[in-house]
Amino acid sequence: MTPQAWDGRTVWEEDDGRVYILDQTRLPHRREAVELDSVESAARAIETMQVRGAPLIGATAAWGLALAAREDPSDAGLEAAQRLLMSTRPTAVNLAWALRRCLGSILGVGEPGRAEAAAAAARMVCREDVETNRRLGEHALTIIRARAAEVGLAPDEPLQILTHCNAGRLATVGWGTATSGIYRAVADGIPVHVWVDETRPRRQGARLTAWELGEGGVSHTVVPDSAAGHLMATGRVHMVVVGTDRTTARGDVANKIGTYGVALAARDNGVPFYVAAPSSSIDFGIQSGDEVPIEERSGDEVAWVGGITERGLEERVRLLPPDSPAANWAFDVTPARLVTGLITERGVAPATAEGLAELFPEARSSG
Amino acid sequence: MTPQAWDGRTVWEEDDGRVYILDQTRLPHRREAVELDSVESAARAIETMQVRGAPLIGATAAWGLALAAREDPSDAGLEAAQRLLMSTRPTAVNLAWALRRCLGSILGVGEPGRAEAAAAAARMVCREDVETNRRLGEHALTIIRARAAEVGLAPDEPLQILTHCNAGRLATVGWGTATSGIYRAVADGIPVHVWVDETRPRRQGARLTAWELGEGGVSHTVVPDSAAGHLMATGRVHMVVVGTDRTTARGDVANKIGTYGVALAARDNGVPFYVAAPSSSIDFGIQSGDEVPIEERSGDEVAWVGGITERGLEERVRLLPPDSPAANWAFDVTPARLVTGLITERGVAPATAEGLAELFPEARSSG
Repeated sequence: MTPQAWDGRTVWEEDDGRVYILDQTRLPHRREAVELDSVESAARAIETMQVRGAPLIGATAAWGLALAAREDPSDAGLEAAQRLLMSTRPTAVNLAWALRRCLGSILGVGEPGRAEAAAAAARMVCREDVETNRRLGEHALTIIRARAAEVGLAPDEPLQILTHCNAGRLATVGWGTATSGIYRAVADGIPVHVWVDETRPRRQGARLTAWELGEGGVSHTVVPDSAAGHLMATGRVHMVVVGTDRTTARGDVANKIGTYGVALAARDNGVPFYVAAPSSSIDFGIQSGDEVPIEERSGDEVAWVGGITERGLEERVRLLPPDSPAANWAFDVTPARLVTGLITERGVAPATAEGLAELFPEARSSG
Repeated sequence: MTPQAWDGRTVWEEDDGRVYILDQTRLPHRREAVELDSVESAARAIETMQVRGAPLIGATAAWGLALAAREDPSDAGLEAAQRLLMSTRPTAVNLAWALRRCLGSILGVGEPGRAEAAAAAARMVCREDVETNRRLGEHALTIIRARAAEVGLAPDEPLQILTHCNAGRLATVGWGTATSGIYRAVADGIPVHVWVDETRPRRQGARLTAWELGEGGVSHTVVPDSAAGHLMATGRVHMVVVGTDRTTARGDVANKIGTYGVALAARDNGVPFYVAAPSSSIDFGIQSGDEVPIEERSGDEVAWVGGITERGLEERVRLLPPDSPAANWAFDVTPARLVTGLITERGVAPATAEGLAELFPEARSSG
């Protein structure tokens, strides 16, 4: 991986079977690949957010299981690996989804074949993520095209899309979820400008979304999270598209802290608010967003911030008085009533139990 | 000013007539007094936010005029000083209010007496700010006491108050506006815990409110701005109190960017949303918040952040990719419909033209 180019890979297997991730904690200042050589290193990468984003967490966990199967393919070994990976982060449901899928196909073969079966399962999860997001992007493109027609853009006037956190290529194996339709629209010649919420405290918008949009040649501007309301009240946003870590069967959306506030501002100003929700992030087993476990992370992530000095050195600085504590909930819940539509790989559903059940009829029984 | 204690002063005159400010750009890591020795240095202090907060901007401008009058007490000299000071920051109406008041009393005396008249006017503005905020705090205390009774706190359970930006002692000459009632409540033995919005990009919450609450012994926790909605949706906030840079005659509230989002979350969760609005921050000359000029500051304030390293050194780090632009509107407008009440030095008014006119009948004609 050269420092000048990014080939889009977030988690991958080299020809020699080694597994790598792009270390997202170093972005945007350094782009560095890190090898995952054990299930423990995969778990650590998820927990410390070297990889993050619901689909990518699932894909990395699948590779973690494959690494575990190389070391100990016994039922006990694989179950311990599953427990370890499940303990890393509680909110994204893709983690459980990917592990359940992979374990199903691994446990069906004898121990000698499990390492290969686990790697094949991880490859399948990754391949399907790319394909799911590609299809999701087609449906998002339809919405973007319709919205551009609806607002009546002047020639060369861009459609203004606001997003929060990173639901981009960096949050997935390919395309991204919220960004998938944006990349498609730009490729199709629809001018788009993206307002990128900074996304405190870990600044996935400022660090990751801004970086990948820049790499992809998409016009964008970073704003503090608190600016979303002002942007919408002053007519500067035509639509909102965000991702989700877990959407319930009735359409409540758990996503990065602050998403709920963006949705409130969108509703107050008549701005459509869409959630890019691949089915891997839909938890058909629960109805209410109140049932989603909300991760609470260290207050140090609020108190300290890392960046690059004018002399080009990486440095961390403390932002708070020494004795002031900070709290750090990583997600919030946007109630379904504020969601204009859920963009899935099968089409766009209203954020209702009926709407989701119509697109995913097989999920009703599994829920 | 020793590094271990703060006597509460934000702008002051020493016995020898020299004028000083506490440099708020250095807080919370350094507490440093800076002399204002000319109207230019006063203007620069306001523009670079060494002093900030609507009432303190007004008080500092009054001292700026006094410094101008020492150098050139002619009508032309004072008018030039007024223009310079007015050009520093457009949103807070206290600036125009303080300058109009001071000029009125200065121009009434002959040139030889103007330097002394200007200093006397500045002292009066400062004295009145303290008294205004003290009285405002009495009315806020009544509301806090009533809210504590209404929510039925368990013994030792604190009333949970959320605030945004800094509308504290540091934003005024004394007491603060939003904090005035909080300091009174704590002194009266009402347990209070304050959720302090960080307030990106300049982090007045994390740097200033957290620091002054700590100095005042008030329990508090800093949260990212985007957490306000989650805190309210999960029942962790009993009331919101914020300040204002300019409130219109009908009760629309211009305040730090993000205030509108806090108000939306409060409304969605039935949390009372109060604005501490001394009459000096009420612009009876305009009706709609759309008429308030919203300052746009440099995107560098979003892209770069200053703090203190683990080795105790002050350092600035860049947070964004090199080619990603940032936008930085400093204020937004909270429509009156979202405001539970305006706390003034004369009592609490509903956020309506009638409510404000009843408390300030003399303003109708001057508007």
